[in-house]
Amino acid sequence: MIVVMKPGSTKEQIDHIVEDIHQMGLRSQVIVGTDRTVIAALGEKRDGAKEALETGNGVERVVPILAPYKMASTEVKKEPTCVEALGLKIGAGRIGVIAGPCSVESKEQILQVADSVREAGAAGLRGGAFKPRTSPYSFQGLKEKGLELLALAREKTGLAIVTEVMAPEMVPLVAKYADVMQVGARNMQNYPLLEAVGETRLPILLKRGPSATMDEFLLAAEYILKTGNSRVILCERGIRTFEDHTRFTLPLATVPYLKQTTHLPIVVDPSHGTGKANLVSPMAVAAIAAGADGLIVEVHPDPEKAVSDGYQSLTPPAFQKMIAECRKVAQALGKKMA
Amino acid sequence: MIVVMKPGSTKEQIDHIVEDIHQMGLRSQVIVGTDRTVIAALGEKRDGAKEALETGNGVERVVPILAPYKMASTEVKKEPTCVEALGLKIGAGRIGVIAGPCSVESKEQILQVADSVREAGAAGLRGGAFKPRTSPYSFQGLKEKGLELLALAREKTGLAIVTEVMAPEMVPLVAKYADVMQVGARNMQNYPLLEAVGETRLPILLKRGPSATMDEFLLAAEYILKTGNSRVILCERGIRTFEDHTRFTLPLATVPYLKQTTHLPIVVDPSHGTGKANLVSPMAVAAIAAGADGLIVEVHPDPEKAVSDGYQSLTPPAFQKMIAECRKVAQALGKKMA
Amino acid sequence: MIVVMKPGSTKEQIDHIVEDIHQMGLRSQVIVGTDRTVIAALGEKRDGAKEALETGNGVERVVPILAPYKMASTEVKKEPTCVEALGLKIGAGRIGVIAGPCSVESKEQILQVADSVREAGAAGLRGGAFKPRTSPYSFQGLKEKGLELLALAREKTGLAIVTEVMAPEMVPLVAKYADVMQVGARNMQNYPLLEAVGETRLPILLKRGPSATMDEFLLAAEYILKTGNSRVILCERGIRTFEDHTRFTLPLATVPYLKQTTHLPIVVDPSHGTGKANLVSPMAVAAIAAGADGLIVEVHPDPEKAVSDGYQSLTPPAFQKMIAECRKVAQALGKKMA
Amino acid sequence: MIVVMKPGSTKEQIDHIVEDIHQMGLRSQVIVGTDRTVIAALGEKRDGAKEALETGNGVERVVPILAPYKMASTEVKKEPTCVEALGLKIGAGRIGVIAGPCSVESKEQILQVADSVREAGAAGLRGGAFKPRTSPYSFQGLKEKGLELLALAREKTGLAIVTEVMAPEMVPLVAKYADVMQVGARNMQNYPLLEAVGETRLPILLKRGPSATMDEFLLAAEYILKTGNSRVILCERGIRTFEDHTRFTLPLATVPYLKQTTHLPIVVDPSHGTGKANLVSPMAVAAIAAGADGLIVEVHPDPEKAVSDGYQSLTPPAFQKMIAECRKVAQALGKKMA
Repeated sequence: MIVVMKPGSTKEQIDHIVEDIHQMGLRSQVIVGTDRTVIAALGEKRDGAKEALETGNGVERVVPILAPYKMASTEVKKEPTCVEALGLKIGAGRIGVIAGPCSVESKEQILQVADSVREAGAAGLRGGAFKPRTSPYSFQGLKEKGLELLALAREKTGLAIVTEVMAPEMVPLVAKYADVMQVGARNMQNYPLLEAVGETRLPILLKRGPSATMDEFLLAAEYILKTGNSRVILCERGIRTFEDHTRFTLPLATVPYLKQTTHLPIVVDPSHGTGKANLVSPMAVAAIAAGADGLIVEVHPDPEKAVSDGYQSLTPPAFQKMIAECRKVAQALGKKMA
Repeated sequence: MIVVMKPGSTKEQIDHIVEDIHQMGLRSQVIVGTDRTVIAALGEKRDGAKEALETGNGVERVVPILAPYKMASTEVKKEPTCVEALGLKIGAGRIGVIAGPCSVESKEQILQVADSVREAGAAGLRGGAFKPRTSPYSFQGLKEKGLELLALAREKTGLAIVTEVMAPEMVPLVAKYADVMQVGARNMQNYPLLEAVGETRLPILLKRGPSATMDEFLLAAEYILKTGNSRVILCERGIRTFEDHTRFTLPLATVPYLKQTTHLPIVVDPSHGTGKANLVSPMAVAAIAAGADGLIVEVHPDPEKAVSDGYQSLTPPAFQKMIAECRKVAQALGKKMA
Repeated sequence: MIVVMKPGSTKEQIDHIVEDIHQMGLRSQVIVGTDRTVIAALGEKRDGAKEALETGNGVERVVPILAPYKMASTEVKKEPTCVEALGLKIGAGRIGVIAGPCSVESKEQILQVADSVREAGAAGLRGGAFKPRTSPYSFQGLKEKGLELLALAREKTGLAIVTEVMAPEMVPLVAKYADVMQVGARNMQNYPLLEAVGETRLPILLKRGPSATMDEFLLAAEYILKTGNSRVILCERGIRTFEDHTRFTLPLATVPYLKQTTHLPIVVDPSHGTGKANLVSPMAVAAIAAGADGLIVEVHPDPEKAVSDGYQSLTPPAFQKMIAECRKVAQALGKKMA
Repeated sequence: MIVVMKPGSTKEQIDHIVEDIHQMGLRSQVIVGTDRTVIAALGEKRDGAKEALETGNGVERVVPILAPYKMASTEVKKEPTCVEALGLKIGAGRIGVIAGPCSVESKEQILQVADSVREAGAAGLRGGAFKPRTSPYSFQGLKEKGLELLALAREKTGLAIVTEVMAPEMVPLVAKYADVMQVGARNMQNYPLLEAVGETRLPILLKRGPSATMDEFLLAAEYILKTGNSRVILCERGIRTFEDHTRFTLPLATVPYLKQTTHLPIVVDPSHGTGKANLVSPMAVAAIAAGADGLIVEVHPDPEKAVSDGYQSLTPPAFQKMIAECRKVAQALGKKMA
């Protein structure tokens, strides 16, 4: 850390900070500049040192040097991680596709979608059984019945089931059915939930919160990694900005940034990332071009009849066409896509 | 709702939408404009109608007319709500102040702060026992021990205890000690938690998520209200924007906006809203001037030694001075502040 | 337009709005709903009608139906526009690449870059002679000397010169040298400048302002189109958001959105859009995959020695590699890239 | 500046950066940490040093220590600046109010508003003669005729005229009539304009751009100060965020932040900052409470008939009431408001 003192800070204030640094078990180095003094704190300490120092008298600000996360970092593990669940392989050169409806609605619906996305090349089936909905008046999901239908679809197609869990006490139930447990964007910083899903040892798809920085995103992953579960898939699904022509803003530069920063695989959700069916396909192709390890896409046999998210769902033929384009781009760039 | 059709939409498409509207139990009115046709859907339906219609063929977009929330709205209840807990009264003309440390750290610390904030005029004591922390390496709170210390402080001072709960399964434990349960900004859309705290019938302090719109904020309140618990205090604590000279951007216009939109009381958190101790006091005074029903402020006897949030905590004397200024402004505007 | 009245608005208020609508030369249709009345205003009027109506007594809000721009819209011209300048062709299926240094620094520098980018496949040479700099203490460009060097580079390579103009009174000077005049992001809403560059009849590269919506961006283009100059190239260069791991957030969904909304070509600037050299190439490839009509990229023979923007400039070999990847993706998607 | 090297950077890379630092006339100090090396560059250099260093091989990032602006800083001038124009006094303890219509529309309109705002206590009259409008189809102002009407209003009321200028070549004309020249939010980084208005030696009201950081805002002021003109009034008028219940988000914490950072006075524009007439008054009062040196408010005798911005304009009686409340708050806080 670098502690920047205010101009005119006193010798006592500087000595005091130096002492604080030593008490933290860190070394210090004082740098006297033209206008102000700067103190370097050397050594590794990630818990609260910055916060403690920046309240010191005479301190203007504290600049951290180390990334705040550790186990997620490429500094700790250089080789990219591949997360697998049944036939779904994501990361370390493997591009995996997860597709399916926003909500599981009926046996017919989920089996029909499962068939069509498997045929198009998906290896994972998404589908919400417990749905976090902005309004309490919206459809909240089929709950356990939905999980049973997902299991049935897996039996028929071999697809890995990816489904969301919303509270720690629901983890055991969802874990009975899911191959990959999803932590939704609204719950990215729901720490008891992160710890609970981590304990299951199942692969976890962690969605970025719509106002999370990269550090916050990777620290949320770190909560899971810290339980001993290293099977974390990061998911970029768009951030909240002033833009109003899309539902969220999909910042694809997070893909190459994360490839350089973490060993964890990163998938992109162009459905939530745009919120408009006619923008999903170009953004899926762009995500692959940017280096994404996978995609998660909403597909519905009849979007107009979907109980949720129909406006951003692809029909099975549109999804098939999208996958074909993604595959061409992946091949052009020398990557493997199932 | 107003359904805006694309230019060149066909008669079949329009008829189809009209039929959909009727099947929802709504009436329709078709408006043929110069460039395109618009269809009004009349009647009240809050669950999924917009989403269903906007996936229709030929539909460009759907504009809702009604607010998506109901029980929180001034259209349903015109008189402002006052939420009370022990001596703390917030709303309907009463300005209440909650103050205390970010985290409960020790018996000495919490008793000392409690004394000093009560003396300055606070009627509520904040203090975190279970702490949601961005990093898993940061201090996570004293947990139940912290709750016991808060109860002890209440016993000594009469202050109402305001403390955060992070997961549904922790609600019964926290409810044993708290007078007001806080749902933090990270959990604003943690729906199982909203329902669980609602069921306790305790007053709930609901913090706005840093990227939540007003509709989303009021719909989160609606989740609580729908359990039959009407004792909800809204809290503006800042939003995430591009600004980097403050930790968050504190948009005080939400105060008068919410006063016109909802009967629920609104308090402001200038500590998280700015993230800098030297900006807290002017923003607290400004919040009162904007019409806030209360404040929640971080106070620590020795901010430099705080285990969390020291950089945005006031010392007791600074807090006392802040309250004095707030009181002057409240009086000048003809409002009562204890 | 749809005028939404407040609940409880009076008959007089409604009649008054209807009358206002008629005085604007529009037709009206009143729709009486369950909770409130809505009035449709039919006909085309883009100037000030919305603003006038929304101040009416009893009006809650006014929802526009028509896009506010006209000449830029695909509703007016369906076929995509190709803008050409010397060998540079952008739009209507042609992908054009503009590359070069942030600032023109010297004869050697600009000739060396020009040679290398032409060889890699660029048809346009960018280079700043008049530089808008955030700080008055930063290098402000070689001014006319810079323009002369650009002309020399054009003579030697045949590349079309793309350079920025910052004020209406500088337009005649810059127009003497430039093949394409650039309006920078800071000047997107500098209306006297937009009109002045429009009058030259030269192709204009219009950069999106970092907080501009799509409507504002297309209305800025409309200022140029309205002068009779239809040779406008739109440029997405990133928006300002809370993200801090990149300099700006590059929202590639604007590419397919604009392809559906306007006939004007759209190029992407991954250099400013990311602000980090190691993210430029993946985002350039992603932009092509998303359907961009071209790229504008900062290239410098020795980024470390660049007087500006070195941290986001590619070296000539890195640029060459980037173009090779873009070309592969373009071919895979059946597009032509020179 | 602090240069943070990547982990594993080589001795050659470090030596190279040290050499670069020395060539800039700065001193260096190398700090060898656990994971990486950090190099401090000591001395004052504001032009391009950061950019040059951060492109160095092995460099991860460069952290500036000094503020990038100088003449605007309280480090250079500690006493607050008061800017005066006729009876308008803003800063150094004086609270000044500027009010008037968005656009000058007619002689009757401007004289009527001028009378009413002067009576309520305003000392400055705002009114647009040259109007920057998002759409080329909107009313663009009465131009010189508007300036003449403003001068007439000054003659009759003694109010100082505050009006916008949009391009350098219009500066001489506007300067003939204006007492304070306004640079609008869209032109905050229009550097030729900043220099041109600076040269007039008139007081300049500089509006913050909707996506400008504090550093960018103060650097824009620095462009004016650098011409030798120190009569700069900063104006906070709201930023662009995801919030959609207001036109912009008005971040009042900029007021106390700027009071600590710069000696220049800061006024607040609650009209543009909220975009809704019914939010203007509470935010004006809050601005005064936060410590603002003044206000600039849109007032129109008949907002419904205004050619622009009617939805955010106050009527004269509403303005009078607003000023009365502001005055009470100012007095309560021991401040003088005319």
